Formats: sequence, structure tokens, C-alpha cells
Amino acid sequence: MDFLKVISPADAMQRLRSALPGRPSRGEELELLPALGRVTAFDVLAADAVPGFARSTVDGYAVRARDTFGAGPEQPAYLELKGQVIMGRRAEGEVSPGTAIQVPTGGMLPPGGDAVVMLEYAAELGGDMLEVVRPVAPGENVMAAGEDFARGAVVVPAGRRLQPADLGALAAAGLRTIVVQPRPRVAILSTGDELVAVDEEPGPGQVREVNSVSLAAAIIGDGGDPLLLGIVPDRESELAEAVIGACRQAGLVLLSGGSSVGKADLVPAVLARLGQVLAHGLAVKPGKPTVVAVCGDIPVIGLPGHPVSALVVYDVLVGPLVRLLAGEREVYPVPGLRARLTRNLPVRGGVEEHVRVRLIEGESGWAAEPLPGKSGAISSLARADGLVRVPASRRGLNEGDEVEVRLLRR
Amino acid sequence: MDFLKVISPADAMQRLRSALPGRPSRGEELELLPALGRVTAFDVLAADAVPGFARSTVDGYAVRARDTFGAGPEQPAYLELKGQVIMGRRAEGEVSPGTAIQVPTGGMLPPGGDAVVMLEYAAELGGDMLEVVRPVAPGENVMAAGEDFARGAVVVPAGRRLQPADLGALAAAGLRTIVVQPRPRVAILSTGDELVAVDEEPGPGQVREVNSVSLAAAIIGDGGDPLLLGIVPDRESELAEAVIGACRQAGLVLLSGGSSVGKADLVPAVLARLGQVLAHGLAVKPGKPTVVAVCGDIPVIGLPGHPVSALVVYDVLVGPLVRLLAGEREVYPVPGLRARLTRNLPVRGGVEEHVRVRLIEGESGWAAEPLPGKSGAISSLARADGLVRVPASRRGLNEGDEVEVRLLRR
Repeated sequence: MDFLKVISPADAMQRLRSALPGRPSRGEELELLPALGRVTAFDVLAADAVPGFARSTVDGYAVRARDTFGAGPEQPAYLELKGQVIMGRRAEGEVSPGTAIQVPTGGMLPPGGDAVVMLEYAAELGGDMLEVVRPVAPGENVMAAGEDFARGAVVVPAGRRLQPADLGALAAAGLRTIVVQPRPRVAILSTGDELVAVDEEPGPGQVREVNSVSLAAAIIGDGGDPLLLGIVPDRESELAEAVIGACRQAGLVLLSGGSSVGKADLVPAVLARLGQVLAHGLAVKPGKPTVVAVCGDIPVIGLPGHPVSALVVYDVLVGPLVRLLAGEREVYPVPGLRARLTRNLPVRGGVEEHVRVRLIEGESGWAAEPLPGKSGAISSLARADGLVRVPASRRGLNEGDEVEVRLLRR
Repeated sequence: MDFLKVISPADAMQRLRSALPGRPSRGEELELLPALGRVTAFDVLAADAVPGFARSTVDGYAVRARDTFGAGPEQPAYLELKGQVIMGRRAEGEVSPGTAIQVPTGGMLPPGGDAVVMLEYAAELGGDMLEVVRPVAPGENVMAAGEDFARGAVVVPAGRRLQPADLGALAAAGLRTIVVQPRPRVAILSTGDELVAVDEEPGPGQVREVNSVSLAAAIIGDGGDPLLLGIVPDRESELAEAVIGACRQAGLVLLSGGSSVGKADLVPAVLARLGQVLAHGLAVKPGKPTVVAVCGDIPVIGLPGHPVSALVVYDVLVGPLVRLLAGEREVYPVPGLRARLTRNLPVRGGVEEHVRVRLIEGESGWAAEPLPGKSGAISSLARADGLVRVPASRRGLNEGDEVEVRLLRR
């Protein structure tokens, strides 16, 4: 028995998107700081203009710009200094023609003024006389009312994963809370009669189950809420029952192990019985023994049991799916670090291969050293700084070739 | 009055490193999943070899490799099939010369066996006869005992920010908990008589204070624990008192606003009185009005009040400092996304300039469109997808130039 037809991660994602129903936005209201990294449920609009008044962006003198036209060190403009704006208060007085009012950075621009001369281009001569040695254009050194946000402007759009500047923008617009989408719950089931939980001592022939913790951590990083459902024995009825239970509790179900084509690999058959198998076999190395299915409207992914394979498939397929279910509408590529290979890298071709590398900083930039290690050895991934993707069309890469290293560390 | 001498962020960091005492590692014990993103306090060693026994990495037959040497489709090797290994149990029997024992992926390699023939290269002929059509080398398709971790091997080193694969490695080594460094507490004080808290309605001349929330979010992202101490009026005695109080409660103090050279910019004078000013003026645009100081052994950074400037200085200086205080010993560069500029980008030169850009996906890759916007307009950063750094040595960049965009979104 063998895999019927391996497909690319992009094709698998496309099949999942087609098979899954659209979901309406739902909301959960949070204060700003706890909303960091969460995804907005709706467009947020500015209730008022920000700032509410024109402000100076420098320490200087509010003027009518035309009063400074032509001014220079040889031919200064002379204005009457009429007072000063106090920080945080309404500007008193008005900038009438031929006059100036002192204003601090952030201070309100007094009525009549349309520009600010910086402190260093003006001198107070005494007797209310101000000398200006450089002209300003209308609007110069001024932030207009509503220049940050016009009333009704979109402060942050729906489907955005909130970053520090977004939270600052929400605060500027006077929002104390924000409505975000709930985190998608992602259930994790591990299968394999050789597995014991991490808090148990393995007996002869047994090993500790490690994928649930590394997958759960990756899920948290992508904005999901992992639900660890433990280890299921390699028996079809128990596995089916566990999958049904997981689908009731979660928006995405991950199975770890049992996804290949051996006698003990029950996952493909169980998922075919409970739902629809969209793909069995991913054109990814390591990671080929992957099952992509939907049960009802819940996506179920059968991941390879080998820890490295499971995390590589997480990276190329599951992570993007978690973000989709989290409601993210803005998708950004993850840039890699440019580095040069320290040695030739032969690959078989036909599948995209993800090679673990260690980064070495040199005088002429970064070098990427491919690491040996079986996909069953989690240590080889924990020792790696990143992954280099060799496209399916390539037969290998050469020493000195520039590659993009997708960092595992940040 | 002007800045005495602007210095680069790298120089500022170097001065801080020299002025700060080394800190001993302290520990806080956490379960694995809550330790995601935390920094290890000590090297973690493997108490036992992982795996504890040699395992098959495929479904197949455990053999003595030499019994298969020279085997091929024309000239198969014939072995006596002596039984099978049950998953998760001690292997029964022994692979004696001329024999084979069936073994599943992950099953224990029986004594005597030194390699595994994959299922597809063998056929059971009946009557305990196994035909092998491909030779295996010793060790082939086997993960040796201790191949993942030898006993006493470093599972994760001290000073590492824990990522999913690290947690998997810790689980594999049988650790249920991990000792991490405490998060560094970072106090944030905002100064400015024009500021009101985000939950207050600004009066005439007043604006909402936004930097504390965006800085706090950035601190969380770098593994710190923000402590929001609110708004201090622009009075020297109150500011000094607030800084002294903040230094007692935190390992790093950030001041927002009042860091320039104007009359209301009290931060440089106050920090000179309370400690040692290492730099006033950073060769960064936006972000020049920055004060770098130490008070006792606590670093205190006076950030510009303009929200964009504050976040840019956070990015180039404060973030790395938070990670240093968090105990991180492994430092990785943040790779940018390669994109082409949509238009010429003139800059003044002499300072490194961080230009906000929007990313546009095109057929021939990504384009970066420089965004207008004053550094006081947080919206211009919230609308940006990333920042392009123009080095201090450049006078500008041209339309079509390839740039690295440091993503603000992920």
C-alpha cells in the first residue's frame, strides 16, 4: 500500500478552504493590552477627530506663514510676540497679521496661526520683538485637527492581528476596549501504543509523547487555544470515538501519529469513515504521511508521529489554518534570513524539502550549516536555528548558494 | 540649546552594557507550556538517554545487515521470519544470523538486529520464509539508543528563549517543569502637561496618552513585564520623585516625552541629577530626542513623546535591552522582507532613517510604498506594514531599489 497522490501544502490549503463553510465574525470584548496578538472582529472607527485641534510639532512660534515669506539671515522678518500657549490648555489670543505666539511641542495652535517657526530660526530681541530668519510654508510644523484620524476613519480594520502600534492607535482614538474574535480551539490527540504521557516513566519499548506540547506551543503562537486530549490507543473504535469527541469541543482537530500507510496507521481509514479525506500524502519532506480531512465542518489533520515531521507540517499547513480560523484577513509572508550554505545539499526532488540548519555569523554575513538528524529526533530541531526550504523542482543546492533561512528562534 | 552629540543605537547599547552590572541567573519553575517564550535560567541536561532503546524508524523487518548484503530483485536474500515486535512492548526473541523479526515504525529493535528492511523491499512467502530484494547497511532505518539525547547531553542551553521544538525536546527528555528567568519588570512613566489618560475625555489643548499602551505591548512581546505608572506633570521635583519610585520597582525605566531640548524637556536634567546620562540624542529618525541614562544600576531611557518616534526607538534600542535583561544569550537578527520601492525616497543623511511603508503584492514580488505621516501621528504606523531602514551613510534610495522591510505585522 502506498500514498495515492501527494499534493502540495498550498493545494491542501485550497481544498480545506473550499470544504469549510465561512464563519460569521463573533466578538469578545477586551481591554487594550490583553488584546495584543488577538484578531479584531469588526472595523473600528474613530468617534472623534484625533487630534481634536491643530497642534505644533515643534518648540517655536505660531505665525501666519505669509508673514515669513522671503525671510532669511540677511533679511529677517520681524513680528510682534504676543504671548505664549500653555501646554495642555486652550490657546489664548489670536495670531493676527504681523504677530507671533510662542508655542511648545504638542501645544495648541492659536487661532489665526497656520504654521510654526522652529525655536532655532527665531530670536526674541526684547520689547516683544521676534526676529525670524527662515520662512515657513502654511501647515509647516503643524499637525492639523483630524490629521491622525478623521472622524469616522477606520482606526483598525476587521481581521487584523493587533500589534503595539494598533493598540496605540486605539488609545489615541479614545477606545478603552476592543472587540476581538475568540481564539479558535484546537484539539490535539496523540495515537500510538508506544506512547506514555510526559509525566510517566516509559517502560521497555515505550517513549514519551512529545508532539502535544510542541504543537500546543505552536498553536498558542498562532493565536489558537490548544486543548490537549491525551493519548488514544491504536484501535479503530477508540480512535473514532476520540475524534468524534474532539470535533464536538474544537474548531480544528489535530491527530499525531498513525497517519502513514502501515498496518497500525488507522487514521486515514477512521477519517474516511467519519468524514471526507481531502488528501493523504503531502509533498513535503519530512512530513509526507499527512492526512487532510473534514468531519462535518471541522477540519481534521492527521500529522506524522515523528516530532520534526509534525512541526514541519504544522509550519506549512496547520499554522496558516489556525490563523484562518482565528479570523485573520491580512496575510504576510515570513521573511527568511539570507545565508550561504556551508556545504552541498543533495535532495531527492519531487517534494519540497525542509532542511534544518544552524546559523554561523561570519565576517561576510551569515552561513547556514545543514544539520543531520532523523525526523524522529526532536533534538535536531531544538538544535537548529532555522529551516531552509528546497523547492520540489530542485535536485539540490550547492555550497555557497544563498538561501533563505526561516528562523525557528526570535 | 541643542543635542551635544548624537550616537548610534549600537553605541548606546554598548554604553549601557558597560554601565550595567552583570546579573546572576535567578529561577522560576514553570510547567512546559506556560514556559513558551520564557528564557531558560540554566542548562538543562538529559537525565537518561532518549530514546532509551534502539527503535525502528520504518515499518519493516529487523535483520542483521550482513545477511542482506548483495540482495537484489534478481538475487534476493532469504531469511527465516521469527515473529514480530509488538508496539510499546519489549521485543521478544533475538535476531540470530539468517533470521528476521517484523517491527513497526517506532517499535523496539530486537537484540541481535542492527538494521531494518522496509516493508516494500521484502515479501512474506509463507512458511516463515522472508524474501529481501534490497540490502541494508548497519544502522539503516534505526534510531539508536541515545541518538536523540545522550545521557547528560544539553537539552536546552541557559539563556534560550523557549520555542515549540525546545518544549518538545524537554518533554522527550522527561522534564515536566523548567526553570526560567523572571520577566524583567519595565516601568513606564509618561510626562507632559497636555496628556490625559486614555479613559479620560481630553479638554481643550489636551490629548490622550497613547505611548504607555503601545510600549507596554512591545515590552510583552520581548518577554518583559510592563508596569504602567501613569502620567507625571512637567515639574522637575515630581518627575524626579516618580523616577526614583520607578527605579525601586523595576529593572528598567522608560520615560515617554520631555526628552528633547526645549524648556519643558526636564528629563535630561532630572536624569543627570539622579544618575549618569550616557547619551542625549540618538542618530535615528524619527527618534533623535532620546536620553540614555543609568540611575544606580537601573537603566532609564527617556523616549520621545511622539508615538512613532517612541516605537522606533523602542525597536532599535529598548527591545534589545529588554531581551538582554530577560537573560537572553542567543541573539538573532530579524530578517526583513525584500521589496522594491515604488518611488524615490530622499533622506537627509547622517542619521539612520526608519521609513514607514505599506506592502503591495505584485506579479514580480512585493513592492514597498513609503507612507507619509508625521511622527506624532500613530495612525501612520498603524497603517504601515513595516519599516525600511535607510542607513546613515545614504542620501536616499531610488524607485525600484530593493529594500528589506522589517515587518510590523506577523
